[in-house]
Amino acid sequence: MGHNIHFLPDNVHVTVEDGENLLTAAASAGVYIHAYCGGDGVCGKCKVQLEKGDVISDNAATLKQSEYDKGIRLACKAKVVSDITVRIPDIVKSDGKALKREPKTTRSISARSLEALIGTWDVDPPVGKIYLKLPPPTLEDNISDMQRLMRSLKNAMPENPEPTYDHPELIRELSLILREANWEVTVILLHGKRKTEPDRIIAVEPGDTTDRLYGLAVDIGTTTCSGVLIDLNNGEIIADGSGYNSQIGYGEDVISRMIYAQRPGGLKGLQQKVIYTINNIIEEVCKKVIISPSDISYIMTAGNTVMAHLLLAINPKFLREAPYVPSVSQFPLTKAAALGIMAHPSVRMFLYPCVSSYVGGDIVAGVHACQMQKNEEISLFIDIGTNGEIVIGNKDWMVCAACSAGPAFEGGGIKYGMRASQGAIENFQIHPETFDPMIVTIGQTKPRGICGSGLISIVSELLAAGVIDPQGKFKRDLNNPRIREGEDRWEYVLAWSRDSMIGEDIVITEVDLDNLIRAKGAMYAGYQTLLESVGMTFSDLDRVILAGNFGAYIDLERAITIGLLPDIERDRFYYLGNASMLGCQISLTDHRRFRDRVAVRTLMTNIELSENPNFMNHYMAALFLPHTDMSLFPSVKMK
Amino acid sequence: MGHNIHFLPDNVHVTVEDGENLLTAAASAGVYIHAYCGGDGVCGKCKVQLEKGDVISDNAATLKQSEYDKGIRLACKAKVVSDITVRIPDIVKSDGKALKREPKTTRSISARSLEALIGTWDVDPPVGKIYLKLPPPTLEDNISDMQRLMRSLKNAMPENPEPTYDHPELIRELSLILREANWEVTVILLHGKRKTEPDRIIAVEPGDTTDRLYGLAVDIGTTTCSGVLIDLNNGEIIADGSGYNSQIGYGEDVISRMIYAQRPGGLKGLQQKVIYTINNIIEEVCKKVIISPSDISYIMTAGNTVMAHLLLAINPKFLREAPYVPSVSQFPLTKAAALGIMAHPSVRMFLYPCVSSYVGGDIVAGVHACQMQKNEEISLFIDIGTNGEIVIGNKDWMVCAACSAGPAFEGGGIKYGMRASQGAIENFQIHPETFDPMIVTIGQTKPRGICGSGLISIVSELLAAGVIDPQGKFKRDLNNPRIREGEDRWEYVLAWSRDSMIGEDIVITEVDLDNLIRAKGAMYAGYQTLLESVGMTFSDLDRVILAGNFGAYIDLERAITIGLLPDIERDRFYYLGNASMLGCQISLTDHRRFRDRVAVRTLMTNIELSENPNFMNHYMAALFLPHTDMSLFPSVKMK
Repeated sequence: MGHNIHFLPDNVHVTVEDGENLLTAAASAGVYIHAYCGGDGVCGKCKVQLEKGDVISDNAATLKQSEYDKGIRLACKAKVVSDITVRIPDIVKSDGKALKREPKTTRSISARSLEALIGTWDVDPPVGKIYLKLPPPTLEDNISDMQRLMRSLKNAMPENPEPTYDHPELIRELSLILREANWEVTVILLHGKRKTEPDRIIAVEPGDTTDRLYGLAVDIGTTTCSGVLIDLNNGEIIADGSGYNSQIGYGEDVISRMIYAQRPGGLKGLQQKVIYTINNIIEEVCKKVIISPSDISYIMTAGNTVMAHLLLAINPKFLREAPYVPSVSQFPLTKAAALGIMAHPSVRMFLYPCVSSYVGGDIVAGVHACQMQKNEEISLFIDIGTNGEIVIGNKDWMVCAACSAGPAFEGGGIKYGMRASQGAIENFQIHPETFDPMIVTIGQTKPRGICGSGLISIVSELLAAGVIDPQGKFKRDLNNPRIREGEDRWEYVLAWSRDSMIGEDIVITEVDLDNLIRAKGAMYAGYQTLLESVGMTFSDLDRVILAGNFGAYIDLERAITIGLLPDIERDRFYYLGNASMLGCQISLTDHRRFRDRVAVRTLMTNIELSENPNFMNHYMAALFLPHTDMSLFPSVKMK
Repeated sequence: MGHNIHFLPDNVHVTVEDGENLLTAAASAGVYIHAYCGGDGVCGKCKVQLEKGDVISDNAATLKQSEYDKGIRLACKAKVVSDITVRIPDIVKSDGKALKREPKTTRSISARSLEALIGTWDVDPPVGKIYLKLPPPTLEDNISDMQRLMRSLKNAMPENPEPTYDHPELIRELSLILREANWEVTVILLHGKRKTEPDRIIAVEPGDTTDRLYGLAVDIGTTTCSGVLIDLNNGEIIADGSGYNSQIGYGEDVISRMIYAQRPGGLKGLQQKVIYTINNIIEEVCKKVIISPSDISYIMTAGNTVMAHLLLAINPKFLREAPYVPSVSQFPLTKAAALGIMAHPSVRMFLYPCVSSYVGGDIVAGVHACQMQKNEEISLFIDIGTNGEIVIGNKDWMVCAACSAGPAFEGGGIKYGMRASQGAIENFQIHPETFDPMIVTIGQTKPRGICGSGLISIVSELLAAGVIDPQGKFKRDLNNPRIREGEDRWEYVLAWSRDSMIGEDIVITEVDLDNLIRAKGAMYAGYQTLLESVGMTFSDLDRVILAGNFGAYIDLERAITIGLLPDIERDRFYYLGNASMLGCQISLTDHRRFRDRVAVRTLMTNIELSENPNFMNHYMAALFLPHTDMSLFPSVKMK
């Protein structure tokens, strides 16, 4: 249920979901509201006048009853629950004239329908159940219990080759199960890779349990792992869970974990940590729907190459030494329980194959999810994180690369950088004349720091307002208390210490800007190098697909303004979300879609950027906001 | 190198191997020599006169120098090393006439060539090695180590599908092995079941190790386990080893072990015992040729159904309860190391499939070895032990059954019965007038007891000499000190206490005879029931194939005389030896022959005899020496 908001005097209309915070809605719509405190209700600056409709709002000490009665509300404390018209008070100058207002063009792509991209899928999972009533043995018909089971399976599936079984517990338990269940059992089958390949018996359960068939999809991120439990009888997600990857205690990024893995016991320790994390997720999702972990019949996972190596306790040593070679790129279908995962002893875990040291299974899963391998259209697939991974191609070819963008987009190398969690500045506008900030934080609290999407907002706003120049240097002559020379060269004060959660001024510095420019420069140079390798330019791109959490909050215009994304038609951009998880989820539900992953891995050709001279040239040229070659950014130039 | 012996006055010619014991040779040839002590040289009765040639003989206190000088030797102490003519002294009666001599027709089938039966086989084992030189990775070519290996394998074997790998240690070690070996490695491949099925990588070894490829064949017997180590590069047996199955401490036969398995910890204990036994064999054979157990690339085993269940720790509970159902009849290819067997973690152990509770993998392996599944000719395959297993058929059909012959042929249920080991009476003749015995023991020592082949000799001789009647009862009126009424009804004294190793008279009793008659009766009734089930008679049999150790020492004429074997043309009998081991050995060496096992298992139809009325009728009729229906034994009747 959406509500319309009409912002005055900017005359901007937006539609938001029920319960949306009004300050967040204004920020997303590009409407500036003076707001220092991130949305905590303490600065009392974000007063707005309701002209039509009403909002639900908390009382705040900073709003008088008389103001409230007149329809004045703190935007940061207001929840939108109906169609409303809101007037933002002008800031009046000493000469009595209102400061000029200039609503921004913002564009979120997060709400765009994905169906065109990922298509539909069937409920035809890689595991299945079949209920059998066996005739009990007699002296005349005393073939072995397993043969009896096979005979009934053959009758039930006359077309299929005889299933195999390799699970020692199964052959040990079978006779008792059959007799206790009075020869009525349910067989869980892992389907063969091809139609001609035999199925494999995972387990035999007493009675008819065909109505209970579950699969787990897990995205193994460097920072966060998440899982969804899927009812494989209807393909629906019935529970989800997530948690920090417990490996984080051994290092925040993949590099530090690879280093830790070289210590005695380090590799095993890292493996145990991620398995502990996965087990927590399994417990969490199973509790939610009251099933046992042993009821899960298949586990589908994806992670980057380092995560995959660590999960299988394969030493990642050679991943980080030139020429950057994974030990394995296609991981064998593994018995999950053998790794220590809480699962039935025979249940298999599939791990998406990786392409190279830094283009991992998460990317393959993402590309697989959005079906680049099936489309004529040329797509640019981007996953921005510490490493930016890029894939360009279509159903006939794909090139991919990872660029060491650096951790700026995850808050690394930024003085007040932080992950996208409570208190992170995620949206920002600057008043074009006063240079005062409008700050929106995650969770509407006082600000603690800046996350990736906030950083992009801040840089693009500072650039647009002329506070910084295209090289990321502050203009020295603006004569504003927020713009000053600090410890790390010049800086802009986003929040004064009194308005911040950490009791000190939160600033963005020229060093931060430098890091951000290098990060976005690496990404952009990556796009260019890959396109060049196939003799194409940006105009050949039919689609740009953003994967990863980062894309969820990114403001498209601003990301283009700073040169992080290419300046092409906006309706070519798609946001895919956690594409890696999506790939796992689709594969888990639809066996035929699962098989297509082979095409993805086979098509993808890795291009090593780290010592590539073309890449280095493009990178140097991209160390500018948005770029030294402004012809690449026509819409930015025109503004 | 054979030597001819001409025995006088019987005028019997035989050929023996160099070094053969003269008493044993005489016994085998059916030539009676008075000999009490089993061949220990103490009774001094077995004096013979050398008329031509010489023998190597130990001095014995019972032979005077003057006798020696005249060419007199103790047969039991003489080794045949050249062609000789030997005269057996007559036993002179009080009237001056020599007692009549009557050489027996004996027939050993142990020396007959097997080639017609088992054919030839190729050296094309189910595992293979391939040496590869990989190009080291570069920035331009930095696919994963495993992919690099696969690419080189593909180049080396362009026709084959891409091999699989499921061994976690392999993917963990691969990168180090490749680098330490300077990218020159040997890959050990387990070949797919069919040509279209991918091979599986078992291991990757540094350098070129293609000249070292070994397989182990193990016959897992209830009593004895034995193994042979085969050089799979040329198919030759390079070492063998054997030992008692350590499970013996928990019961001598399969029934007592199945009972023991029901105790808490019993099943696991029995499994550990047989694995301990196998490990001892592995140590023994590896020591002999100085290789490591981890150099063995494949283990091929066969055992009866109970042994197979216990090896895999599958509860044998239902094997011995009607309707006698195995839990599993086709055992999955198992990682040997997972069971505790000393082997490379990825090496597979194959266990021959069983047909029913009492027709096991040892029989399938034996039938497979002698290629019944490929021949037009109708064969009767017999393995005599505690359970006699019988298979009848050809390339189009096979019926099989097990009959509870009882343990008589293994020394069980016989007062002085024992296994075929040192001191066991293995051959016996009786003097037709004096009823004095000629005893030959294993190892030429004083007798300790009677083994299976000895028992058959004794019963057939007692019958032929008229000491017992066809119902196995002693004639009461023979008035000979050796024939007397003992504790267990009437008995014949084989050895007086002074001539025995155990310090008491060794006898055979009417109770023993009863047990033997029941045992041979069950076997014979088994042949008849199976033949009847396919509408055939003994005359339809083209071949009778004896498997098992028992067959090695059996005297064909005597076995027919007592009705244990059918009375058909003698040249239709073949002796196959340890057929189970032979099957393993052939399968291990020749992949194509290995595949044929499927046909064997598929052809064999089990017929349950235990509650079969036809079987019971035949059994009752067979409780006679040789049979109540003498028309079945024309050659015996004629004698």
